[in-house]
Amino acid sequence: MKKRLFTPGPTPVPEQIMLRMAEPIIHHRNPEFMEILERVHENLQYLFRTSEPVVVLSASGTGGMEAAITSCFGKDDKLLSINGGKFGERWSRLGETFTGNVLEITIPWGTAPDSDELARLLKQHPDIKGVCLTHSETSTGTASDIQTLCQTVRSNSDALILVDGITAIGAHEFHFDEWGVDICITGSQKGLMMPPGLALVAISRRAQDAIEKNTAPQFYLSLKKALASHKGNDTPFTPAVSLVIGLDNALSMIREEGIEQIWDRHARLAAACRTGCEALGMRLFSSSPSNAVTSVWLPEGEEWEAFNTALKTDNGITVAAGQDEFKGRIFRISHLGYYDELDMLTVIGGIERALYQTGYEFTVGTGVTAVQKTLLQEEMKGAALQD
Amino acid sequence: MKKRLFTPGPTPVPEQIMLRMAEPIIHHRNPEFMEILERVHENLQYLFRTSEPVVVLSASGTGGMEAAITSCFGKDDKLLSINGGKFGERWSRLGETFTGNVLEITIPWGTAPDSDELARLLKQHPDIKGVCLTHSETSTGTASDIQTLCQTVRSNSDALILVDGITAIGAHEFHFDEWGVDICITGSQKGLMMPPGLALVAISRRAQDAIEKNTAPQFYLSLKKALASHKGNDTPFTPAVSLVIGLDNALSMIREEGIEQIWDRHARLAAACRTGCEALGMRLFSSSPSNAVTSVWLPEGEEWEAFNTALKTDNGITVAAGQDEFKGRIFRISHLGYYDELDMLTVIGGIERALYQTGYEFTVGTGVTAVQKTLLQEEMKGAALQD
Repeated sequence: MKKRLFTPGPTPVPEQIMLRMAEPIIHHRNPEFMEILERVHENLQYLFRTSEPVVVLSASGTGGMEAAITSCFGKDDKLLSINGGKFGERWSRLGETFTGNVLEITIPWGTAPDSDELARLLKQHPDIKGVCLTHSETSTGTASDIQTLCQTVRSNSDALILVDGITAIGAHEFHFDEWGVDICITGSQKGLMMPPGLALVAISRRAQDAIEKNTAPQFYLSLKKALASHKGNDTPFTPAVSLVIGLDNALSMIREEGIEQIWDRHARLAAACRTGCEALGMRLFSSSPSNAVTSVWLPEGEEWEAFNTALKTDNGITVAAGQDEFKGRIFRISHLGYYDELDMLTVIGGIERALYQTGYEFTVGTGVTAVQKTLLQEEMKGAALQD
Repeated sequence: MKKRLFTPGPTPVPEQIMLRMAEPIIHHRNPEFMEILERVHENLQYLFRTSEPVVVLSASGTGGMEAAITSCFGKDDKLLSINGGKFGERWSRLGETFTGNVLEITIPWGTAPDSDELARLLKQHPDIKGVCLTHSETSTGTASDIQTLCQTVRSNSDALILVDGITAIGAHEFHFDEWGVDICITGSQKGLMMPPGLALVAISRRAQDAIEKNTAPQFYLSLKKALASHKGNDTPFTPAVSLVIGLDNALSMIREEGIEQIWDRHARLAAACRTGCEALGMRLFSSSPSNAVTSVWLPEGEEWEAFNTALKTDNGITVAAGQDEFKGRIFRISHLGYYDELDMLTVIGGIERALYQTGYEFTVGTGVTAVQKTLLQEEMKGAALQD
């Protein structure tokens, strides 16, 4: 049976990238690799919309988040973290571990942070040194309005703005320089269509200054070391060579498609996925849905285990389960990275089949019809479809 | 032109491993991947000769070294580090960064540590909490007698023994449990015949206890988190999935060949490489040569740039240059990982050609003949070869 992955990382890797990575390994301290790294560095700037350096770390996204915290801040520096899911929580845990001084705002899962509340807290705590945000909260499928949140921080504080862009980069419009972000992190196995193993970190001038002055202990994940090597298109430690080579291919594909086109595609696929789910009688979990991952409530009476077995075993489709208290109650469909319109038909079609196979009552074809209509209507710029 | 890599990491990756890694990506939280990780964990125990856990980190070897230091020790804990090259120096820098209390013994490059001196220092400093050793110092091609050094530590101190086995594991006989090592680290791009991106860390019961009690700040590289996940054949953060899958293949190849046979092969290839170099009139750099990498002085009158260009451009062979003060004076030939006897003939043959092409005077054929004789003599168990 064909296997199809609709999880928010790992996401599918294009065949040409897999084959490129299967080519004989080269040494990382030779001109051939340095040329690759130079192109990767330049294309990462294109991706993040920045003229500032974007460094490549051989680590997962969490390694990138730790690099940001330990490189920019020291013991007792006060951080503000907005926790609306597993990844907002990760910012808080990292902050507690390394600065020991975190002001955490907990917001209900599935909701986006409120900028007025953020402004209030920044005024109340003028000693906040860093604000940790999550652009797309993978555990809940929720997008934050990073542009507005950045404006709010900038109007009320000198704090550095750290954005977890791990499942947002590529899926959501993002302008590192224009929005005044200081640090943004993504991982290779997300919008970049690669296997996991690399973290990419964009670093503003302000953040570079903070990093330069910081004396907190760090080594492998030091952005100071990474920035120093970046100048010479090098890395401080042996990089994951085959992954960097694959990333080079992935970034070329991204430039060819165009970042605005990629944002549009993700918005379109996400809209189609949502309409498909709703047409099947499933409620959306998030009040501010992400373009990377759609979270939906299981329909009344459906059992997660039976549904997931039908989806996976009989239809070859892997989606992500709910986490923590939402385990068994919601599930998450990813459309982040290497997906197109027919993939949305596939995943909703598979879900329809699994619902049918587990005895859920609905009109077969409702979901896939909704997907078709949403996508074709979009293509016809809103002109009515013939029935 | 065919390109051949004789560098101590990256080392060549077997074709079957490259193709395995090019297969469609799978999700890391599913039974298929957990089975792979279970087999990887078991085969890593075979490789390190241990019944204790060996964890997989998505990081370079240096990330593994940092994980060891920050997981086992806290601020002010005194570490003893023996610095006889770039990687011994790395232990010192890591120790200074994270505990701030390092007693460093500097020994001349190309020499191995002396156990009497180690015993003396341990007696003099009973507060030493950890001893950092380098099994094969890649920058100088020097092997340490880890077994004797471990005995020395054990007889004189309760300190934890940390071994950088990055270029030793697979190349040198090593018994984690029997020798009483507490932490040993290797990297994927070395004896494991893989691309870079994974660090593998074996952890003794004593080290596990120290890790359990340690409260120093750490997150991504936390061995405590890695150990907790290891029990369920899981990882605390998204692992570099494609590299773990390749590692599974590499470890199967290692089990098939047999670890004792692999140690023997490395000893044999290293001996052949040394005799080949010496036959060409090049002196060995190290007084205790490693089986992973052979360091030799450039012959009198040879210019490194011209020689290396002839070797690389005209013969397709990449070796490693000397580092620091030995840059341009020595070079290093790797025979670590996926190499066989004919590869030694190739590399010495290529060096012979490059020497000839740059005007060095010698009898053509001397080097390759020496390689042939060494290897065939070995095969005939020392019986004299017919001339």
